[in-house]
Amino acid sequence: MKKGLKVVTIGGGSSYTPELIEGFINFHKELPINELWLVDIEDGKEKLEIVGNLAKRMVEKAGIPIEIYLSLDRKEALRSADFVTTQFRVGQLAARELDERIPLSHGVLGQETNGPGGLFKALRTIPVILDICREMEEVCPNAWLINFTNPAGMVTEAVFRYSNIQKVVGLCNVPIGMEMGVAKLLDIDHDRVRIDFAGLNHMVFGLNVYVDGVSVKDQVIDLLTDPEKSITMQNIHVMGWEPEFLKALDVLPCPYHHYYYKSGEMLEKELENFKEGGTRAEVVRKLEKDLFNLYKDPNLSIKPPQLEKRGGAYYSESAVRLIHSIYTDRRDIQAVNTMNKGAITGLPYDSAVEVSCMITKDGPKPLAVGELPIAVNGLVQQIKSFERTAIEAAISGNYGKALLAMTINPLVPSDRVARVILNEMLEAHKRYLPQFFS
Amino acid sequence: MKKGLKVVTIGGGSSYTPELIEGFINFHKELPINELWLVDIEDGKEKLEIVGNLAKRMVEKAGIPIEIYLSLDRKEALRSADFVTTQFRVGQLAARELDERIPLSHGVLGQETNGPGGLFKALRTIPVILDICREMEEVCPNAWLINFTNPAGMVTEAVFRYSNIQKVVGLCNVPIGMEMGVAKLLDIDHDRVRIDFAGLNHMVFGLNVYVDGVSVKDQVIDLLTDPEKSITMQNIHVMGWEPEFLKALDVLPCPYHHYYYKSGEMLEKELENFKEGGTRAEVVRKLEKDLFNLYKDPNLSIKPPQLEKRGGAYYSESAVRLIHSIYTDRRDIQAVNTMNKGAITGLPYDSAVEVSCMITKDGPKPLAVGELPIAVNGLVQQIKSFERTAIEAAISGNYGKALLAMTINPLVPSDRVARVILNEMLEAHKRYLPQFFS
Amino acid sequence: MKKGLKVVTIGGGSSYTPELIEGFINFHKELPINELWLVDIEDGKEKLEIVGNLAKRMVEKAGIPIEIYLSLDRKEALRSADFVTTQFRVGQLAARELDERIPLSHGVLGQETNGPGGLFKALRTIPVILDICREMEEVCPNAWLINFTNPAGMVTEAVFRYSNIQKVVGLCNVPIGMEMGVAKLLDIDHDRVRIDFAGLNHMVFGLNVYVDGVSVKDQVIDLLTDPEKSITMQNIHVMGWEPEFLKALDVLPCPYHHYYYKSGEMLEKELENFKEGGTRAEVVRKLEKDLFNLYKDPNLSIKPPQLEKRGGAYYSESAVRLIHSIYTDRRDIQAVNTMNKGAITGLPYDSAVEVSCMITKDGPKPLAVGELPIAVNGLVQQIKSFERTAIEAAISGNYGKALLAMTINPLVPSDRVARVILNEMLEAHKRYLPQFFS
Amino acid sequence: MKKGLKVVTIGGGSSYTPELIEGFINFHKELPINELWLVDIEDGKEKLEIVGNLAKRMVEKAGIPIEIYLSLDRKEALRSADFVTTQFRVGQLAARELDERIPLSHGVLGQETNGPGGLFKALRTIPVILDICREMEEVCPNAWLINFTNPAGMVTEAVFRYSNIQKVVGLCNVPIGMEMGVAKLLDIDHDRVRIDFAGLNHMVFGLNVYVDGVSVKDQVIDLLTDPEKSITMQNIHVMGWEPEFLKALDVLPCPYHHYYYKSGEMLEKELENFKEGGTRAEVVRKLEKDLFNLYKDPNLSIKPPQLEKRGGAYYSESAVRLIHSIYTDRRDIQAVNTMNKGAITGLPYDSAVEVSCMITKDGPKPLAVGELPIAVNGLVQQIKSFERTAIEAAISGNYGKALLAMTINPLVPSDRVARVILNEMLEAHKRYLPQFFS
Repeated sequence: MKKGLKVVTIGGGSSYTPELIEGFINFHKELPINELWLVDIEDGKEKLEIVGNLAKRMVEKAGIPIEIYLSLDRKEALRSADFVTTQFRVGQLAARELDERIPLSHGVLGQETNGPGGLFKALRTIPVILDICREMEEVCPNAWLINFTNPAGMVTEAVFRYSNIQKVVGLCNVPIGMEMGVAKLLDIDHDRVRIDFAGLNHMVFGLNVYVDGVSVKDQVIDLLTDPEKSITMQNIHVMGWEPEFLKALDVLPCPYHHYYYKSGEMLEKELENFKEGGTRAEVVRKLEKDLFNLYKDPNLSIKPPQLEKRGGAYYSESAVRLIHSIYTDRRDIQAVNTMNKGAITGLPYDSAVEVSCMITKDGPKPLAVGELPIAVNGLVQQIKSFERTAIEAAISGNYGKALLAMTINPLVPSDRVARVILNEMLEAHKRYLPQFFS
Repeated sequence: MKKGLKVVTIGGGSSYTPELIEGFINFHKELPINELWLVDIEDGKEKLEIVGNLAKRMVEKAGIPIEIYLSLDRKEALRSADFVTTQFRVGQLAARELDERIPLSHGVLGQETNGPGGLFKALRTIPVILDICREMEEVCPNAWLINFTNPAGMVTEAVFRYSNIQKVVGLCNVPIGMEMGVAKLLDIDHDRVRIDFAGLNHMVFGLNVYVDGVSVKDQVIDLLTDPEKSITMQNIHVMGWEPEFLKALDVLPCPYHHYYYKSGEMLEKELENFKEGGTRAEVVRKLEKDLFNLYKDPNLSIKPPQLEKRGGAYYSESAVRLIHSIYTDRRDIQAVNTMNKGAITGLPYDSAVEVSCMITKDGPKPLAVGELPIAVNGLVQQIKSFERTAIEAAISGNYGKALLAMTINPLVPSDRVARVILNEMLEAHKRYLPQFFS
Repeated sequence: MKKGLKVVTIGGGSSYTPELIEGFINFHKELPINELWLVDIEDGKEKLEIVGNLAKRMVEKAGIPIEIYLSLDRKEALRSADFVTTQFRVGQLAARELDERIPLSHGVLGQETNGPGGLFKALRTIPVILDICREMEEVCPNAWLINFTNPAGMVTEAVFRYSNIQKVVGLCNVPIGMEMGVAKLLDIDHDRVRIDFAGLNHMVFGLNVYVDGVSVKDQVIDLLTDPEKSITMQNIHVMGWEPEFLKALDVLPCPYHHYYYKSGEMLEKELENFKEGGTRAEVVRKLEKDLFNLYKDPNLSIKPPQLEKRGGAYYSESAVRLIHSIYTDRRDIQAVNTMNKGAITGLPYDSAVEVSCMITKDGPKPLAVGELPIAVNGLVQQIKSFERTAIEAAISGNYGKALLAMTINPLVPSDRVARVILNEMLEAHKRYLPQFFS
Repeated sequence: MKKGLKVVTIGGGSSYTPELIEGFINFHKELPINELWLVDIEDGKEKLEIVGNLAKRMVEKAGIPIEIYLSLDRKEALRSADFVTTQFRVGQLAARELDERIPLSHGVLGQETNGPGGLFKALRTIPVILDICREMEEVCPNAWLINFTNPAGMVTEAVFRYSNIQKVVGLCNVPIGMEMGVAKLLDIDHDRVRIDFAGLNHMVFGLNVYVDGVSVKDQVIDLLTDPEKSITMQNIHVMGWEPEFLKALDVLPCPYHHYYYKSGEMLEKELENFKEGGTRAEVVRKLEKDLFNLYKDPNLSIKPPQLEKRGGAYYSESAVRLIHSIYTDRRDIQAVNTMNKGAITGLPYDSAVEVSCMITKDGPKPLAVGELPIAVNGLVQQIKSFERTAIEAAISGNYGKALLAMTINPLVPSDRVARVILNEMLEAHKRYLPQFFS
């Protein structure tokens, strides 16, 4: 085996990068990375340098022999990589803002992963990830692709279906966030909690919850019926569930389920913010600005605590845990986006699902779930229909497919509204959607 | 074989009955019914007599030897029946009106089959149909149960799952209406049109459309993109589909799909009517009143043409065609609600589906559909989740299950709104929901 | 529509052809064929001429305006065909003889469809049928391919998987033979009998049996427990079933099931014949010689009755019925080999199965079967494993795949015996197996 | 939690018991058993005492505070158990001898798990295990049932289907034996080897083989094509595989696959032994006699090394590993017999399968396998058909079902031979088959 590992991070100029660096530093003993390439595009050069310099200061301070490289030449950077992580955002925060504002201006939730916003994120992102895969085929065909770019489920499925890179895992911080949330709720250590996850990205359910191997699902659900208690995420306004609803549901919803089981109230809340001029994207833009100001400080050589407010909590931990478990064949359980292959009965065999897996050197091996509970199967299937139609639209650049995806999305009230929003968003994102405009 | 057939019609006092009588008269040569029992409850006695007397005048005028019996003693009437048809409505039109008005008063579509209204129709109807099945087991265990009572899909599934009567078929006039609509659109004879149907009750799609065995699906879809043209049903306000949406959908939606692909506009329209004091139920009430006034006329001895406005067009034709094909082992194709048994891949093996079947003496044999198109599978699955949860609520009388069913319904915006509507509807229908109030 | 239909029969010099001609003559009113091309290879030229001349005399005598063409140029003959029927035999009877004799010389049944003999028939036939498909793509891409060449199931699946011709139906005379057999057993007209068929080619079961739409399965099974009664086929030595076995099986086996449920006795019987110098192939060779002598007679202008002893009874009837039903969109029920698409739960979605179908202008539409009975599912699955492995061997010319197919065949006692038989057969059929010897 | 664990071993007088004791001693630190009940029947009293006394000497010598109880009152012994292990043999070795000798006397392999012998073992064992389950329901409803009694797959499935005890795991030493065999073959430590197992009991395949997380399947298969090398088990005469067959199979067969892929040679070998008066059962009887003589020695207080020749190697290790992992929620991977629930696509959802599972406090959670390789699926399905039919026969005592199971077994050449063997075996085992003789 060669001397050390080469990791390449596409979208290296992201404000999340310091988390990743921190993780690599903490795990360095068992995960001997000796080259870390941070790659970004021309437009992100300034941020890349700010983050890159902080990264260098961090490893130096930690006394860890990771060499950090900054690059705008993606293909060259990818050469001989062992792990490629992707956390880029096509069109940056400005695009996300449009993903939210345009639907809201028509009275519809944008929802940046499984809603109209998510559709456009997929349309912009999938062609880029497939480009990356084609480059990987050439210069690092055996590398693992660890994708955090949202919509992580659709991106992972697009890679499985439309590229020759099959060593791909889609990663989300929702499952780890839910486990952390339960630990906090029960006031116990995170390591003692295990949740059986099944569903799709941002549409995942905790089918059972264990503490030290004993099911505490009923107790957790009881606790969550208290409106004062909840499993929150930084970036979702969380409201209490109706107690009788949650008990009858009998599984743990994820925070994003607020968009589906409380779409009325979520829309109201977001429209309020919208009218006051604020969307989540704008909040994030403000946070990012502050973060980069911090990052610039040549005296900063650790991950600043303010980053945790950013909304991507646990991403670092998830990503590094995953890479570590693959590298060391650790065979621990983590919930990731991978190919279904029958793990969840009723979902397509060759679709991406988010499910508890044993992580091995050979990749994630899903634990068999069997049938989803009747009451949640329908919504999961509907989102999968949306995802697959959206992927087809992203690949083909077909207007009708995009309109179909938009219309069947559960947040969109009609084909007519779908067309209006679609047309406006296509125009707004034109620059990033060559497949629709050639 | 015995001399003639005995048919029992539960809900015989319905305004639809004259259509059924007309059908039995027209088919009498091949379908030798000699006893027709019209059964109703005490509250419906007056209507039963009006309709029953018209029925007697009709068969007499036609010179057909069908003996007509009117009865309030259901179990006695069922004895030795060959076919039992059910077209009763628990709580009558007043209940339907509440099914529509209460949700609308909270800004939500009532939708009497697959919406909140449909949930309550199921909660009221399923216990009664299971009572009927128990009686049939005793007094006519080999009879076929032909159910038209809505929600026909849920009622059929409840019978399959929770009774010993397995010779049950659920019937809806939507498929035949769609074939008639296509025939009219193409200005050809109905007999030349065949549609491959698959889906659920009021959630059925035409996967392909043939004229003389040659697919004309593309042509029909093209025609339907013209807003002036549509396949209408009397009881649904039909709006044109977005042309690019319909083309990308690439299958024929049924009129009820307006509630899902145009829920925004449908809600707006119904709220408008609601504010003007009119709901569909009220329109129907008026029509019914006029019809019964007509029926009373001792000089009337045919089905009055005004009945066609009633909204149940083709029910007579469907029901009689079905009974005829079973009785004669005709092996023709009809779309009915029957047990899936793998015909539609991905839907539960033992759930009711609405699908094109070969009709034999041994009952309906579904044509294998395979996988539903990706884009429509999600919505169908979601309605099936709702249906199964609703059936569980109807059987158990469990408040949480009912709230769960209401919340996961795609027309309901949140668990909170679901609870408000549920509570109000439970109270309003208390009399018909003993399973929730004992 | 053009004036008449063009039918092309590959392997037109077969002794079966007069049956086909008879069928086309009988159905001519509804199936207006005006060109029939009989195609054969150079080696079969003499037979083609004998059969072709008889065919010409037959249509002339019948006064039917079908023009008959004889051709050795397959691709030219195929041009603009509407239906292509294939009944060729690669290597002719001599090859079949080897298919039987070589396994028997090692104490193993040859079984020309699903046994070691069938494996070699597949290895020889699949490359030729795919050549034909490539030609059809060029010169008659919209024609229906009606394949009778055995092993019909594997050939049909190979076409589905490895060619662009998807309008293909595999035809076998076993189902019609079973219906005829039941009719004879009950001494009633064939038209009154309907069997629900499901399984694979030469591995098909009658799941239910109806007379006039009423199940008579139990009665038929009872009759078949009488060793004097059976549903025979000309080419299989039929022995009575153990009564208690047949009753517990609770479905109708086909005659070929003797090879699996009575392999011991069948082997004994065939070894006996083998030692006496006779195999089924040799019997057929003698019959064929006699037939061609008859066919030469210029005074013969009808199908000679002796042909019925040949073993392919009902082929003519099946083939013409099928073409007729497709052409006229007849929507009757016939059991054919077609793509499963979920019709039989548990068998691969995209594999060929033999199943009762509604025959339409758009091809066969299988009736949904659901799960096979537990006790028969295993054997059917095992033959499907064999078939798919054999197809892979036929396509790839891979020795290991062929050995694997031979070993997993239920008639072959071990990997070692499989290798011995395989090697000897490869050598014997070398001329027809270029994929293994290049 | 209470002070210590109570384990009850049914069939405690077995010669295997000292292995189990050794395991409990070794793991005592993490698996704090304080009561071990060895239970047997009246007929086994003597053996129980011999083994029980040895067990007492073993724990005493080891200085471990496990209290050992001997009992003939099964239900009393079961009271408040935490784990119940079953290793009884209905009819003891004499019955096994008949299971082998009767089929062989008719030229058929007996094969004590999946062959005719296995059928009778199931017929004798299933009623007893269901009795045990009924007792457990009453006196220790929350205990785990760890069944080693063969046929372990059928016994486990019978418990799932026909009892209320669902905390049941079926255990076999084949998977651990295969991992040990691979470790030996590669001359490495067992802990470094992991095999992905899937299939049925004694019909399990190694789909992939890893050393330190890296696949070495091709290398292992290559090694196994050397006739000098093999993965042996004490109780199966192992012969080399045909190299090209094994490579094309492309997965690791288990030793029992010799009975299916080499049935010819296995039969020859066993017939030879049979003629020489020896069967496996007789060899075992001799070994047992010797073992019990050893066990009697009051100076013996460890597991005697001679026990390893007995054929049940690794049983102790497997059983104790499993109980330990359940008790400590260890989440390691072990291959056990558990309910499929979709883990292996194509096998029934509610059937027992043998598959790699994560072992948790909540029981085994299978890793999703997806589809079995085409070439092996058929045989696995066939054995599952046999198993399910055999279970139905065991429950119902129906002669026809038993004949059906015997006939569809791949080792049995015909329905006629099946009947002969069945009748003789029913008579021979009459005493243990009350369900067939009442």
